[in-house]
Parts: sequence; structure tokens; C-alpha cells
Amino acid sequence: MSLLVIGSVAFDAIETPFGKTDKIIGGAATYITLSSSYFAKQVNLVAVVGGDFPKNDIALLNEHGIDTEGLQIKEDQKSFFWSGKYHNDMNSRDTLVTELNVLGDFDPIIPASYQSSEYVMLGNLSPQVQKTVIERMEKRPKLIAMDTMNFWMDIAKDELDETIKMVDVLIINDEEARQLSGEYSLVKASKKIREMGPKYLIIKKGEHGALLFNQDRVYFCPALPLEEVFDPTGAGDTFAGGFIGYLAATDDISFDNMKRAVIYGSAMASFCVEKFGTERLIALDKKTIESRVQAFIDLSQVELQIT
Amino acid sequence: MSLLVIGSVAFDAIETPFGKTDKIIGGAATYITLSSSYFAKQVNLVAVVGGDFPKNDIALLNEHGIDTEGLQIKEDQKSFFWSGKYHNDMNSRDTLVTELNVLGDFDPIIPASYQSSEYVMLGNLSPQVQKTVIERMEKRPKLIAMDTMNFWMDIAKDELDETIKMVDVLIINDEEARQLSGEYSLVKASKKIREMGPKYLIIKKGEHGALLFNQDRVYFCPALPLEEVFDPTGAGDTFAGGFIGYLAATDDISFDNMKRAVIYGSAMASFCVEKFGTERLIALDKKTIESRVQAFIDLSQVELQIT
Repeated sequence: MSLLVIGSVAFDAIETPFGKTDKIIGGAATYITLSSSYFAKQVNLVAVVGGDFPKNDIALLNEHGIDTEGLQIKEDQKSFFWSGKYHNDMNSRDTLVTELNVLGDFDPIIPASYQSSEYVMLGNLSPQVQKTVIERMEKRPKLIAMDTMNFWMDIAKDELDETIKMVDVLIINDEEARQLSGEYSLVKASKKIREMGPKYLIIKKGEHGALLFNQDRVYFCPALPLEEVFDPTGAGDTFAGGFIGYLAATDDISFDNMKRAVIYGSAMASFCVEKFGTERLIALDKKTIESRVQAFIDLSQVELQIT
Repeated sequence: MSLLVIGSVAFDAIETPFGKTDKIIGGAATYITLSSSYFAKQVNLVAVVGGDFPKNDIALLNEHGIDTEGLQIKEDQKSFFWSGKYHNDMNSRDTLVTELNVLGDFDPIIPASYQSSEYVMLGNLSPQVQKTVIERMEKRPKLIAMDTMNFWMDIAKDELDETIKMVDVLIINDEEARQLSGEYSLVKASKKIREMGPKYLIIKKGEHGALLFNQDRVYFCPALPLEEVFDPTGAGDTFAGGFIGYLAATDDISFDNMKRAVIYGSAMASFCVEKFGTERLIALDKKTIESRVQAFIDLSQVELQIT
């Protein structure tokens, strides 16, 4: 089934204890589409860039089978730019620069050929823009997943609540789940958040794995213990891309299949952090991915007969 | 097979955001023996208490099938006492009082009837005392597991290194693993620590689960997501008790069985934190434990065929 992805396509400049980059290709939708392209047959991108965005980076997306008909190019404007510096433990970072540029007045136009998309991934953006995408879909997609962040909880809580109400799966991190719910316990947080609308909630805990909640069921997928995390930028988006891409590819939204999708998302994220930016993500193949998924199985599966 | 446990049997006074206790029964060996008593046929305790230690608490251990022939009672001295206060997030605590008392010159005497113990759990104590226990075993046990803490890394590193070299399984938390190895990455830490002697290393990450390392294998067991952690005191010792107790009961030290033992240890620890001190731990039964183990299976197991 085809997948529609909306989010930022942008420039990042990243500094980690291992080095720093100049402006490189980044943005939530870049990571989501690249990650999902290894699974979903058809990935449809809705985003906006400025005239400064390199044509060969758009070509790179196309080479991964990503449809960029919905990628608006504002020739006389500049692309969204984010710059950040990671602390030594890689678990926190300072934002050095945020230039909204083209994102400031982004009007998400959905090409007619995208209207049949059964799966939708709303990457982190203003909740108003995310909501507009849902409203512009002529037919309710089979599954809508959404990412967001603290920033929108601080400045656009009402719009955020409205958008959250409309989605099936919310994908956020532990800190965001605590802020959104006002609960420290993630079990309590997950109940409150699912009362806001989404039947499914994924709470990402970075190096500590991810939790999937639905009804009275909960599934936990660990993160792969790595010798070195080189650059965490985009890991959350790459997770979301692997998750939704796997669901679109298998077209099965049962809880059991969502568990598998969480593993695929985690596997993709584990690649992402091994190099700067999208470097590792653009050079994968099916066999490499499946061998990584096997590592997650080996890490977490056990044979146990309760007597 | 029978299990020998050494460690503190003591008084604790605990303060958490949910309330505070007077002096209650505590100590590493108390939690370890109670937890392992649900699995191992024979649990042999080596410890020391003062004349102030209530006889009915010793009787309670006996009711759980714990052999207290090796529990020395120094009638004219006082028992070890620890008092601590947990912070709001329950992840950190301040020690308010530590009175070594009888532990100050503890000479661990092993009764002849304990000499056939095939499994040994060295609870957190001075590494010199832990080493003495190993040296006083007439026959090398089948498996020796050991807990320790930062305190001994600070003040008795040489003795600690000597003792660590003699054990099969080291069970410590993530912070301790980082201090012991000087490595932030737990994968790197685990390699360095296993080069120090222990073939198996368990790194406990509290609410984030536990990792088991051996050779190039790693297994991860999540912690059960709980609505409320009431009192974390003794959770690590309860984990160790469930782990070693399951191994002694099954008498199988293969990696696959150690994975199961980590689940049983995690299940026991998840009970421990539900009430103050040993309150929850003393009132369990086989069926309740197995239903909790099933919750861990439901939480972490997945059906996935890699195509």
C-alpha cells in the first residue's frame, strides 16, 4: 500500500563529540521517507524547500523510489535550517540555530495522485499543518501516525489536542509523553494520552528502547546496545519511517504486526546513529536490514515454558 | 541444588514520596534469600546480626525454608543499620545513616552442612569478606555470582579486583559498570569487565531493564512498566535472588537458561518495589510469580519470520 509522508526537508549542521558537519540534508520527512522506502512500495512526500536545496539531493530521494511530486520548491526562499550540538553523553543537545524560512508559511498541497495513500505519517511540524493534511485527504486513510514535540505543547496546545484526536498512532519520546500527560509514570501517561484520541501510543526511550501501548496490551522493544553512538540526529524519524513503512508494506495493522513494525523501526534507527546525518541510511540493502532485525530477535527473544 | 547466600541481614529505615518506615528488616542477604527461596530447594544463609535482631524475623526466614545455621548472632552487639531517603523520581536516593555495627568485623563462618552448596551468591559486602567465603569453600562451587557497589570501587579497588577475578557472574548496575570499566558505552564496559574475570556480566538498568553479556552474546530483559514504584529498596538484591535461585532450582547454567533466570529475577524485583521493604516479597506464591513471568513474556516476545 502507498504511504504519504509530510514533514520538514531541510538543512542541518550537527556537532557531536566525534566531529561536526557543514550544512547537510536533514529534516523529519527526509529521514522518514528514506527509512520507509526500504519497505513501502510507494512513498509520497509532501514538503517544501527553498531554491537553495540541491537538485541532486532531490534526485537521491527519487533514486530511493520516493515520489517528490508533492515537494514544493520556493525558488526565491531559503530551506528550513537547524543547527545543534550534542552533549558528551549524546542524550541531550542544544539547539544553536533554527531558521524556519520556507516552513514559516508552509501550505501542504496534496497531489491528486497521492489521494489513494492508505498510510499517512505526519512528521513533526506545526499541528495546524498536520491537521490540514488530514482534512485534505478525500478519503480517511487506513492508518494515520503522528510525531510531535515539546515545542508544540508549549506554544500550540489547543491545536495539538485537536490534531492528536484525529490520529491512530502517536509516536513521541518519554519526556514528551510526561509533558503531554502531566504524569511521570509512563503507564499512567499512556492511559491519559490514549484518552485524548490515539488508540495506539509509542513511547520512544532512546537508548532504552520503545514501548507500544494499545488497550490493556503493552509491548517493549529494546534498543540495540551499540559500542558507539556517532550522531543521534534523525533517529526518531528513522524509527517512525521504518515503523510506518513496514505497516504499509505488510498492510496489517493488528497489534502483533505493530510489534514487528516497532522492531523494524528500531533496527532502522540503530543504523541511523552509526554515521552523520543520512549517510548510513542511504546506503542500506534488504539483507543488511534483515541481519540487523535478526540481532534484535537474538537480543530479546527467549524460550520459556511456564510449568 | 543448594544455594549459599552471603550478605547483610540488617535494619533499614526508608523514606519515599509515599511515606516512611521505622526500622524494618532489610539487608542484601534478606532480600536475596527470600527471593531465591521461591525456587531453590535449599537456601543456606551466611550472615551476622546483633542481639537486637528480632527472633521472629529469623523465624520468618526459616518459614521460607531458609537455613540460618550460618547466621551468627552477636548478642552484645547491634545489627547493621541503614537509613535512606528517595528523591521524587525514585531513581536516586540519599543515605541518611550507615551504622556498620556487627558488620565491622564480620568473619564469615561456613557451617559444614553448607559445604556442598553448588551455587553461591555473594551479596554486596566488603570484597575481602566475599573472597574469604570463596576461599573457605572446600570444593569450587558450580557457579559463583557476585554483587558489589561504587563504595568498594572507591575504597578497596585492589581487593575488589581480586574477588571479581574469582567469580563467574558479576551483577552490577549501569552506573557501577561505567565506574568499574571507565567506559560510558555499556557494550565497551561489558568487554572490559569480562576481561577482569567473570564470564557472565549482568548490568541492571533499574526501570530500563537488564542486560546479560557472555562471549559475543547479549540478552536484554525489560523491566515491567509499573503504574507506581512504591519503594525500590532491595530490588537489585531481589533480582539477584530470583536469578540465582532459578539457576539453582534448574541446575542449568547454559546461556539460554541464564536468559530465563534474568526474567525470573526481573519478575521478583517487580514485586519487591510494589510495597515497603520485604512486605510484598514475603507473601508470594508460585502461581502469582508465574503469572508475573507471563507478563514479561507478553511484554517482550514477538513472532517474526525473517523472509
